[in-house]
Amino acid sequence: MATLMEDEVFKAFSTYAAIVILKMLLMAPMTAYYRMTRGAFSNEEDVALKPAEERKKLLRTHPDVERVRRCHQNDLESVVPFVMVGLLYALTGPELSTALLHFRVFAGSRIFHTISYVGALPQPSRALSWTAGMLVTFSMAYRVLSTVLLL
Amino acid sequence: MATLMEDEVFKAFSTYAAIVILKMLLMAPMTAYYRMTRGAFSNEEDVALKPAEERKKLLRTHPDVERVRRCHQNDLESVVPFVMVGLLYALTGPELSTALLHFRVFAGSRIFHTISYVGALPQPSRALSWTAGMLVTFSMAYRVLSTVLLL
Amino acid sequence: MATLMEDEVFKAFSTYAAIVILKMLLMAPMTAYYRMTRGAFSNEEDVALKPAEERKKLLRTHPDVERVRRCHQNDLESVVPFVMVGLLYALTGPELSTALLHFRVFAGSRIFHTISYVGALPQPSRALSWTAGMLVTFSMAYRVLSTVLLL
Repeated sequence: MATLMEDEVFKAFSTYAAIVILKMLLMAPMTAYYRMTRGAFSNEEDVALKPAEERKKLLRTHPDVERVRRCHQNDLESVVPFVMVGLLYALTGPELSTALLHFRVFAGSRIFHTISYVGALPQPSRALSWTAGMLVTFSMAYRVLSTVLLL
Repeated sequence: MATLMEDEVFKAFSTYAAIVILKMLLMAPMTAYYRMTRGAFSNEEDVALKPAEERKKLLRTHPDVERVRRCHQNDLESVVPFVMVGLLYALTGPELSTALLHFRVFAGSRIFHTISYVGALPQPSRALSWTAGMLVTFSMAYRVLSTVLLL
Repeated sequence: MATLMEDEVFKAFSTYAAIVILKMLLMAPMTAYYRMTRGAFSNEEDVALKPAEERKKLLRTHPDVERVRRCHQNDLESVVPFVMVGLLYALTGPELSTALLHFRVFAGSRIFHTISYVGALPQPSRALSWTAGMLVTFSMAYRVLSTVLLL
């Protein structure tokens, strides 16, 4: 047990995995914030304390809320595979410097992706940051498959 | 290999991880049940056996189905990060009693969250159960980062 | 560290986990492909280079895009739990042949699920492939719980 957490690569993986997961988790309060400031809710019980005549109007979608939700969904589709593949990658014993390069590029790409998405920056900023993260995950998956392939 | 599964904290983590993942997986048959009882489907091939005049009407959304799907989505956003952070947390070697407290509060909070969401209980029951789960994950992430930080 | 990746079952798990995660990741470029060929986008910045009079028309949903997105979502709901439960399952030390049977059935079921879904094959092809994958995950979760149960 202790052995894993004494390994430098595994420590680096744990650090960056925790960082990108925390970033992903922050999308939930951000959605809540946009729901409240924009007045756009999904559930009747969430607007129960509002005046009766307003309630129905508040059960709607709002472009800003949908944008944050798409960004959150993209995190689920990108960050979760990174963490799962990254764990296996860290166990294949890569060089620490190579591993750190992968983890840093990924973490940076996802932070920039969130800024591009929520801030609606002009393309291709969002597309490029998404692609950088994807390439990191593919590179780690390639190393995993080429090291342990057992079909 | 055997070493990991002999560790008490790792055994406790595996138990609670399996429980909350199974709970999450049950949202899929629950969605299917609501789709069939409410008559609200997404795919043409799913209504191919119905009488031709009914088919188009069945390709619709229904509030009850959407509610279960939002609950499922919230599980993806909360349970998956818990399992990924929890694995790293278990490897940092916390006290068994502290670890069990984290895992039990999380499992309880997610079961109560599902009941609040699907049953549309008055707020803040759903908000509080969601927050309890989130705090557990943040607490575990804090321990991971303060134990292994390697940037 | 090296010990884990010398274990045959863990190698097999890593191989199949990487394969199904890569399959899931391919849904993102597939969605992008359908968005571009069908002309159905979600974000204003994604259509900024189109002629001004076309832009508004391109911000719409299209049934083919929604179908691929539902398939991607189903991958998130099925592949992610498989990888998380499968990791714990591999650590319980099952027979290699039993483990390989689980992993192969799951990988096959998800590839067939994608073909059924994106190709809109008649039911019950999609339902059966989904069920096969789910049964594999339940079987692995059962083994995890019966081996390590610590509540």
